[in-house]
Amino acid sequence: MSGQEDTESQTADDGTDDGAAEAASQIAELDDAWRRTAAELDNLRKRFSKDVASARRQERASVASRWLPVLDNLERALEHATSHPEQVVDGLRAVHEQALTVLAGLGYPRREDEIGEAFDPARHEAVSTLVDEELAPGTVAHVLRAGYGQDSEILRPASVVVATRSE
Amino acid sequence: MSGQEDTESQTADDGTDDGAAEAASQIAELDDAWRRTAAELDNLRKRFSKDVASARRQERASVASRWLPVLDNLERALEHATSHPEQVVDGLRAVHEQALTVLAGLGYPRREDEIGEAFDPARHEAVSTLVDEELAPGTVAHVLRAGYGQDSEILRPASVVVATRSE
Repeated sequence: MSGQEDTESQTADDGTDDGAAEAASQIAELDDAWRRTAAELDNLRKRFSKDVASARRQERASVASRWLPVLDNLERALEHATSHPEQVVDGLRAVHEQALTVLAGLGYPRREDEIGEAFDPARHEAVSTLVDEELAPGTVAHVLRAGYGQDSEILRPASVVVATRSE
Repeated sequence: MSGQEDTESQTADDGTDDGAAEAASQIAELDDAWRRTAAELDNLRKRFSKDVASARRQERASVASRWLPVLDNLERALEHATSHPEQVVDGLRAVHEQALTVLAGLGYPRREDEIGEAFDPARHEAVSTLVDEELAPGTVAHVLRAGYGQDSEILRPASVVVATRSE
């Protein structure tokens, strides 16, 4: 709020022409300052929604770009599949590793959920239950689908089967 | 600019106490309006950068999520590689198709650049040249790496070899 004066203490109580002129000029100044700030606010609001949309577009392009090398290697593995069938599994494994690296680089590493750990709804999604006398009830009996993300930001919880006791 | 009055026409020229009091009240009102608008502007600026950051995070998570089924299928193909080696190439092909679908869904389809089309720096990246008497000089002789995106938004230009004539 630069250029602002303490206007409260300068009311035109003296009743002179000088005071009236001063008050009039102060009013004009304040009115101008207010109008300019209001216009700035209006512009910022308009720019705001444009900038958010543009930030989204940029982020989408940036994230999508990281997957292009994975696509390239999938294509390469397919091209070599006929001439070098014995290398297909190696190619597939390399692409999988690469895809995991891309996800981890985005902040979403593959989660290593283990059989026997306590079921935690924040990190696990229970798909079914399984009677298992070896495991403690309420622990993970099987991981059906890996989870991704960090504890602070789970992208997808792991799909698990939860151990129970027989009646 | 609701609640704004035409202050220019109400200067305290009459020199009476009434006029002075009116001017003082007008100054106080304007000052208050200006301060509130300035505070609003300040808050909006702060919220603005937070919202842009949060829009980016959301977009990143949303785009990354779309790749998880591709990861799942890569894992499945690897798991079946030992027991069903004859299906590995089919699995690889399915994952490749799926990955192309994800990219197209994000607005970045695989570009079908053809041999013989005119080299266009907006869509092609020339990696090298090749003497070719069949093709018109300055046309695409070979596509080394596919491009992605639409004409309006090229995510990555295709890497191409450009045809030339021998001297």
